[in-house]
Amino acid sequence: MKPGKQQPIGIFDSGIGGLTVANAISGALPQEQIIYFGDTAHLPYGDKSARAIKQYAYIIVDFLIEQQCKAVVIACNSASSVAYPFLYELYREDILIFNVIDPVVKGIAQDLSLRKIGIIGTQATIQSGIYERKLLELRPDLEIRSLATPLLAPMIEAGFYNNNISRAVLESYLKRPEFLELDALVLACTHYPLIKNDIASLLPDHVKIFANTDFVPRELKLELERHYLLNPQRTGNNRFYVSDYTEAFEQTTRAFYGQSIHLELCNLWKNQ
Amino acid sequence: MKPGKQQPIGIFDSGIGGLTVANAISGALPQEQIIYFGDTAHLPYGDKSARAIKQYAYIIVDFLIEQQCKAVVIACNSASSVAYPFLYELYREDILIFNVIDPVVKGIAQDLSLRKIGIIGTQATIQSGIYERKLLELRPDLEIRSLATPLLAPMIEAGFYNNNISRAVLESYLKRPEFLELDALVLACTHYPLIKNDIASLLPDHVKIFANTDFVPRELKLELERHYLLNPQRTGNNRFYVSDYTEAFEQTTRAFYGQSIHLELCNLWKNQ
Repeated sequence: MKPGKQQPIGIFDSGIGGLTVANAISGALPQEQIIYFGDTAHLPYGDKSARAIKQYAYIIVDFLIEQQCKAVVIACNSASSVAYPFLYELYREDILIFNVIDPVVKGIAQDLSLRKIGIIGTQATIQSGIYERKLLELRPDLEIRSLATPLLAPMIEAGFYNNNISRAVLESYLKRPEFLELDALVLACTHYPLIKNDIASLLPDHVKIFANTDFVPRELKLELERHYLLNPQRTGNNRFYVSDYTEAFEQTTRAFYGQSIHLELCNLWKNQ
Repeated sequence: MKPGKQQPIGIFDSGIGGLTVANAISGALPQEQIIYFGDTAHLPYGDKSARAIKQYAYIIVDFLIEQQCKAVVIACNSASSVAYPFLYELYREDILIFNVIDPVVKGIAQDLSLRKIGIIGTQATIQSGIYERKLLELRPDLEIRSLATPLLAPMIEAGFYNNNISRAVLESYLKRPEFLELDALVLACTHYPLIKNDIASLLPDHVKIFANTDFVPRELKLELERHYLLNPQRTGNNRFYVSDYTEAFEQTTRAFYGQSIHLELCNLWKNQ
């Protein structure tokens, strides 16, 4: 059965960070219903193995398909890096499936003024080498420098941003010889839009800063249009599920989504 | 069936941090065989709900009992805070079961020179209020100030300790009015022994710093003796299991255990 226009868009992440993507999508496509799943039981994915991340993503996408989603957005760079190819092969006939990496890669490749690109993200994303590989496929002339910055996501979650400490941590990561003379820096983690100002203050003015949220909503809109799946009018309410619930998670939604939202517990890993 | 002296001691934590406790136990009781389980699939526990932590701990202790352990040490403050009481009630007839909190509480209560006590730990540990409750039961005269310091464990895991950034982060946590004039500070997280020097440098010299590793091995030894369960001679090799394996986890073992150790993947949460 082919999906219909009024079915929701599923969005998932390892936790709360993907709400930056959900928020950007909601802003660009306000008539679409969103079903968000944050895998807070396994949060963060950035340190986990590729094998584990694939297993989690498989279970979550299965759940989103059960919820009748017409499209699924993997709003997490770690999961997009390691789990998208197999999820795409598995579900391409059934639903539209998006990662947060391809739209950024396409956007950068089209900007011919760029040559030296820096990429920062979690251990899982950087170790996968996916940004580098995809960018070089489209633009073999690019020079790419990747760096795992594992403290940034927990730092943001603990509320350290736009302050002296976040700037000191960023400085320790960014002030290195291989990051000199960049034309652009890719924020390859859905948490990082929250520290975009901190990052900008440490880089020369001409360095462009790209985040997933800058490109994903447009790509999603184009593809929904192409498949005649844009929802002409809003139907149901957005839903936000998490695999583990705490008040602290709910409080954090304000920073990532721009407003407090109610999280519903939905544990897909009940054991025994 | 009552356990025998030559059976191993099970130790578990949400990840790698509990290796500081395993190392202290191994140092004090070198003739004991250790079976360690690090729940790296769910790491860190500090942000998770009490309900989720109890579910994980239940599955892990069940596994350690299957491995014939004569005793289990919950080498994690978050799990000790929320899961110990029900695990104790469940297994008290079968095995010895230890948390990392009671030995510290006992040690502090016996030191009559102490009056103002600070406690730092994860969100889960601090929100449980367990140190405060147990300390006040034994010593109603104590004044206790607790603070959740959620950035410290990921900071240590990302390799930031004994440097300017770790000191700046610690300063932002510790330099607050309610922490003035402490007699002692409790490091209520098994990661924190690695930043003991950083912490000491920020506190007046007379402030005593207590970590779980200072008290747990002695308590374990006393209880094993009392139950005639001390192993007179070493039998099997130590084993170290994790629920998710990455090279980065294995590399981190050196910092927490004092030497590199080999981690074996053992996923107790295979789903579907």
